[in-house]
Amino acid sequence: MKNDNHNHEGSHPSNIEHIRHSLAHLLATATLSLYPDTLVTIGPAVENGFYYDMDFTTPLTEKDLESLNKRMKEILREWKKAASKSEEKGFVCKKVSGDEAKALFQNNPYKLELIEEIIAKGEEITLYVSGDGSPYPFTDLCRGGHIDDVSQIDENSFKLARIAGAYWRGDEKNKMLTRVYGLAFNTKEELQEYEYMLEEAKKRDHKKLGKELGLFTFSELVGPGLPLWSPKGTRIREALNDYVMELRARYGYQKVSIPHITKKDLYEKSGHWEKYKDDLFKIETRENHLYAMKPMNCPHHTQIFDSEMRSYRDMPQRYCETTAVYRDEQSGELSGLSRILCITQDDAHVFCRVNQINEEVEHVWNIIMEFYSTFGFSNITPRLSRRDPETPEKYLGEAKNWDLAENTLKEVIESHTKEWIDGPGEAAFYGPKIDFMAKDALGRKHQVATIQLDFVQPSRFELFCINEKGEKESVVMLHVAIMGSIERFLSVIIEHFAGAFPLWMSPVQLRIVPIGERQLQFADEVYKKAKALGIRVDLDSSNDSFGKRVRNAKTEKVPVVAVIGDKEMESNQLTLEGRSEKIGVFNVDEALDMILTNSRNKSLHI
Amino acid sequence: MKNDNHNHEGSHPSNIEHIRHSLAHLLATATLSLYPDTLVTIGPAVENGFYYDMDFTTPLTEKDLESLNKRMKEILREWKKAASKSEEKGFVCKKVSGDEAKALFQNNPYKLELIEEIIAKGEEITLYVSGDGSPYPFTDLCRGGHIDDVSQIDENSFKLARIAGAYWRGDEKNKMLTRVYGLAFNTKEELQEYEYMLEEAKKRDHKKLGKELGLFTFSELVGPGLPLWSPKGTRIREALNDYVMELRARYGYQKVSIPHITKKDLYEKSGHWEKYKDDLFKIETRENHLYAMKPMNCPHHTQIFDSEMRSYRDMPQRYCETTAVYRDEQSGELSGLSRILCITQDDAHVFCRVNQINEEVEHVWNIIMEFYSTFGFSNITPRLSRRDPETPEKYLGEAKNWDLAENTLKEVIESHTKEWIDGPGEAAFYGPKIDFMAKDALGRKHQVATIQLDFVQPSRFELFCINEKGEKESVVMLHVAIMGSIERFLSVIIEHFAGAFPLWMSPVQLRIVPIGERQLQFADEVYKKAKALGIRVDLDSSNDSFGKRVRNAKTEKVPVVAVIGDKEMESNQLTLEGRSEKIGVFNVDEALDMILTNSRNKSLHI
Repeated sequence: MKNDNHNHEGSHPSNIEHIRHSLAHLLATATLSLYPDTLVTIGPAVENGFYYDMDFTTPLTEKDLESLNKRMKEILREWKKAASKSEEKGFVCKKVSGDEAKALFQNNPYKLELIEEIIAKGEEITLYVSGDGSPYPFTDLCRGGHIDDVSQIDENSFKLARIAGAYWRGDEKNKMLTRVYGLAFNTKEELQEYEYMLEEAKKRDHKKLGKELGLFTFSELVGPGLPLWSPKGTRIREALNDYVMELRARYGYQKVSIPHITKKDLYEKSGHWEKYKDDLFKIETRENHLYAMKPMNCPHHTQIFDSEMRSYRDMPQRYCETTAVYRDEQSGELSGLSRILCITQDDAHVFCRVNQINEEVEHVWNIIMEFYSTFGFSNITPRLSRRDPETPEKYLGEAKNWDLAENTLKEVIESHTKEWIDGPGEAAFYGPKIDFMAKDALGRKHQVATIQLDFVQPSRFELFCINEKGEKESVVMLHVAIMGSIERFLSVIIEHFAGAFPLWMSPVQLRIVPIGERQLQFADEVYKKAKALGIRVDLDSSNDSFGKRVRNAKTEKVPVVAVIGDKEMESNQLTLEGRSEKIGVFNVDEALDMILTNSRNKSLHI
Repeated sequence: MKNDNHNHEGSHPSNIEHIRHSLAHLLATATLSLYPDTLVTIGPAVENGFYYDMDFTTPLTEKDLESLNKRMKEILREWKKAASKSEEKGFVCKKVSGDEAKALFQNNPYKLELIEEIIAKGEEITLYVSGDGSPYPFTDLCRGGHIDDVSQIDENSFKLARIAGAYWRGDEKNKMLTRVYGLAFNTKEELQEYEYMLEEAKKRDHKKLGKELGLFTFSELVGPGLPLWSPKGTRIREALNDYVMELRARYGYQKVSIPHITKKDLYEKSGHWEKYKDDLFKIETRENHLYAMKPMNCPHHTQIFDSEMRSYRDMPQRYCETTAVYRDEQSGELSGLSRILCITQDDAHVFCRVNQINEEVEHVWNIIMEFYSTFGFSNITPRLSRRDPETPEKYLGEAKNWDLAENTLKEVIESHTKEWIDGPGEAAFYGPKIDFMAKDALGRKHQVATIQLDFVQPSRFELFCINEKGEKESVVMLHVAIMGSIERFLSVIIEHFAGAFPLWMSPVQLRIVPIGERQLQFADEVYKKAKALGIRVDLDSSNDSFGKRVRNAKTEKVPVVAVIGDKEMESNQLTLEGRSEKIGVFNVDEALDMILTNSRNKSLHI
């Protein structure tokens, strides 16, 4: 059965799961037909496809995948042929005794290990036979979950993708097996769509684009994981940060500023020293004091809160600061902007009373939704990470505060959406939180923001305000980063936009390209006019040919190019070109005014 | 002779020097008359007064200064009386042999040591006798430089000020002597003016005001020398920094962004490791690499310049960045914001061709002059620090570049002012520079900005551009900080403005004070209106009395207070008060518009 509905996967997840699992059996069958000495082990369905871990006598290489893929399709045809002549259309289940199973797999120690385990647990042993009646019958030890009718599998909707090493049962003490991955979807079109997405993701790779667009660089002298931001990259960082700050200012957030180091005393008091000391960059001063570079900002911010007596009238105090934190990561784990040593967090901490949590979370919710929708992220789904109701003793702080806080978070979520994920047992020991997941332009999911409640630090630092009765009242702390870190967010949106940033955040918004020397003076006047207006503009007067200069502007993904020839010069006009099409011919002032107006509109994706 | 010209000191520096030196002799005379066992040593004139270092048999305390001061005046009267009866009006010089001198000072080992030295150098030994014919004659070993006529000294124009310890001849291996300081001017009025300035400086102390105004705090947990900036302090920092950036943007400076750490490799290449490694905060990573926190930004910035091939058309590259640098200072040397561990530099580096130095320096000159005159700093005097012509071998780089660079700096200076200081031999080994000195509101001089040329780093990092001929051409680097550091600049201007910052940089520009509960709603509407306009506004609705709330606003030096009573509420008006006087009654929109307009005018000091 061919299925043309591209969204099938979403509506019938179990069917595609069954196809993928069935294909794992088919892969094992094909492998054994080409490499009979292979020991097959385990082959589950996974996201986007399936795999099978196998022990080959001679190593399999990527080059071998094509013939293996071809053999899978041949065998599938034979299985379909046999099924068409039989009452059994799919996989036939056989319950067997332990001894029968062991006899069948006597030469496969992996399967024998699995069988012993099933026996030990007292569970039923089931075998699944596929291709019965075909030249390629295959029997596997399996719990089931296959397609009812092999004819439902479209041979063009799957493909072997790659090979990886994998330890038997994930344990590095065991033998390294060969894992063969396949992609599988309901239809050929879905497969193609997914492959296009992979291809596109490779092209959009932020490490590659970051270099091509001249946004950041790494220096061997400075070290890995420490990006240096060029003027262009810095402009984007600033545009993003200004936007976050603009949204926050609406809700009374105020900027503060702290140093990047501290005596270890601060972290002993906060509890971070004990938990994270191995992950900190540590400094021994000339006077032999032990300092650390900050891996987070909250303990420093508590000291600002604590520097004055706070009345209930001063609450909440909302501090925000975009500042670098440092973590001593292993160099092997560093990658592009996704994993670095110097992380610029757009951090904020709200110190508030328990009865203010609702309103504060509501504010953050609004900021997050507005921010992410501006970038065109769809399907923002919240998850409530709360206590495990079975083990209340694992959590610090008073139960009544936890109840209140969890209920408050839940109320805020439910007032906005019915689509949320419940996460019992996923709270941190110091408080519940809401995590947000968003899908980018390629449909990839990213965890994008978190609102975290914290009872523990306020208690360790004894933070309080004086309430209406003149009594000390313990306060609560909210940890909130909107982007998380500028670097991680940039790594996501460079790929999301494929480097073609919206006008408002483009490092160069307008490039002026005169056709030749003759228009240079006029071009320079236009350049100065644009600059004076605050447009991020540059002028390409290099020796390259006109065509080359226009192509360069496209390669650099400049959103608007103003071409100036004699005609434009004489009529005081500009011919504007967008990234992919001509925008039009406009009077100079009109053109600049239009660019300026559009550059202030963040909802425009041009 | 009474002198009413307050500027006398400036026009006749030698006369006041002579008075001060004469007063040192008078101090020694008075001391010996009260404490005859004292051994007097050396007593010179200094800025604003004089001192005498003496070896007391019983310790002198601050309390003893009053009687000593009184005795000085009594003796001065006696000296004047004796002078009026004699032909000798002042200090009489006597040339003596070494033996005579030694006989005279046989009981004073300090004077004997000085005499031996004079003899060893083969110089003349001179004694100066004062008060001859009075009951208090005094003879001192001295080179001269006294007032011609003791009657010229006004007994009300000097005053003993304080006591300090001082090692004999400044050597800590020697005995600690007691240094008695006196203030001395031409007139009583000048003395009073100076004392007022000292008193005012104490009141304006930035550590005291910073706390009172809630700008920054220190935490024992974080450590000394590491200020934490409150929302108010951060607003001032940002206003200052935005201003510097606004001035720089006019000249094509672009922001960049670097991490705060680096592998030591960067500093080995730059040469900083060898010179400054003891002053760096060093980090050993989990993988045992040696990193350092950056004590300056130039080496990092070279790596951004070096990340792309630069054509002469790309030059100059002007990078600016306001970022924290860290230096491992001794904790005993830390003081307020003047000496800290975390220094926020408003740093910039211009990479340019030698023939572009003139224009670039001119730009910086303009920025510095505009910036400092905005704050009302007067008498900005440049100093050209250049090579010592006698030791050209001490300096790195080609002589012709040095000639060109020094001449260029001199040309720029002379095109602006004839009043500049020549500093031969004061260049750094890597290039010449211009230092700027400015006087604050109390007449105190501060070194405020520097333009530094650097041939060495571009050469060590092999930085070049491709010139018109297609050849590699070495570039030059300019180091420029306008404020130097935000902290140091703030320590200066907090005192310069006595915390009463101009409107444009005030952390709170407008405070709304309703007389009572009844006006609260109206006050809140005004507050929201002001906030929406971008005015930094707050509303004092606390329980304090109306009078107390107005006083609080004055103590916090809020530039504009809007008082709201029934009358204002009914007529939709605000009564505006400045820091010292009433501004007037205005319609709400008119008032807010006026505040907004004035807050954008940096030349207004209200």
